[in-house]
Amino acid sequence: MLTITISTNRKTELVDITHVVQSALHDDGIDAADGVLYLFCPHTTAGLTLNENWDPDVKRDMLLTMDGHIAPPDSRHRHAEGNSPAHIKTSLFGSSALVFVEGGKLQLGQWQGLYLAEFDGPRRRQVWIKYVASAG
Amino acid sequence: MLTITISTNRKTELVDITHVVQSALHDDGIDAADGVLYLFCPHTTAGLTLNENWDPDVKRDMLLTMDGHIAPPDSRHRHAEGNSPAHIKTSLFGSSALVFVEGGKLQLGQWQGLYLAEFDGPRRRQVWIKYVASAG
Amino acid sequence: MLTITISTNRKTELVDITHVVQSALHDDGIDAADGVLYLFCPHTTAGLTLNENWDPDVKRDMLLTMDGHIAPPDSRHRHAEGNSPAHIKTSLFGSSALVFVEGGKLQLGQWQGLYLAEFDGPRRRQVWIKYVASAG
Repeated sequence: MLTITISTNRKTELVDITHVVQSALHDDGIDAADGVLYLFCPHTTAGLTLNENWDPDVKRDMLLTMDGHIAPPDSRHRHAEGNSPAHIKTSLFGSSALVFVEGGKLQLGQWQGLYLAEFDGPRRRQVWIKYVASAG
Repeated sequence: MLTITISTNRKTELVDITHVVQSALHDDGIDAADGVLYLFCPHTTAGLTLNENWDPDVKRDMLLTMDGHIAPPDSRHRHAEGNSPAHIKTSLFGSSALVFVEGGKLQLGQWQGLYLAEFDGPRRRQVWIKYVASAG
Repeated sequence: MLTITISTNRKTELVDITHVVQSALHDDGIDAADGVLYLFCPHTTAGLTLNENWDPDVKRDMLLTMDGHIAPPDSRHRHAEGNSPAHIKTSLFGSSALVFVEGGKLQLGQWQGLYLAEFDGPRRRQVWIKYVASAG
């Protein structure tokens, strides 16, 4: 299992981790194989997602809607830390992602990037990575 | 890696791909094995999900709520293409799905089907498929 | 494939299944291996998620927002069973989860638990489990 560490800078933020994941794969010497790469986020107020990594306004609009419309602060929430919206957004995006690998390269669509979705930062976050080869 | 192509017909649409995925598995000659099938959608405005494939009103109600309530158009969105709600819905549903395979058959619940979730159609979409055998 | 059965007690409920999943792994004699564990929920009104299992107010706040704000009852829904919000919430959380296994133990973050997310209970629910060893 590989671990990568990401420092986030804002309360909510989509951090593009595509290149750091590709590099971790390469450094681990498993870059020649074909299989499936699994990413797991061991936190409860940050998740993982895939989305566009071309126009930064996409990330901005996504967070605007997630933070302000889908799971805004709610005075009826009781959790003392006050970050229940971050827990909700984490379950909506999910704690894991998978990407196919061929010839050592992450297989992504033309506009796709892999994101750590920070919902209660800034913090230091981990992403765990495991690789399983396909049948061949 | 197998690729299937789906043409969607509407702006938002849940397209049942259960049978085309099962057929792709069969045609690829891996239908005797037990393992896990992974599906990956390489787009940023379409995702994958599992849900009921019996009463078509379920799909209709799901899209009504996704499009009109959860991620409606928002005049504060800045992304020039105007499809930020589609990006949000893609991250909410997710870009991948997994299904168990036993004896060459997709293992699904009685009412479950596999769906391509189109959020910015009509378009031609791809779904990538990979198979990993279980330990035995 | 292992199957575990969970009886839920309320209309909507997050049921912590971390220990029952760990026990199922152990009882199946695959607890010495390293790999990836996949969980699959074969229902269309219940899903799977990972989130905090320390303060019960987190679960309570999550359901308050999911049920009352994100996918509330809507008089425009047509599905005769009246449980379209449960179908929507299932696709938002997802029907599968994955967790890494090392030395026979589920690898989870400090505050993470595995949850069956019941959205249309009370009912008896199944969770299917499969294990794939990593390359070594």
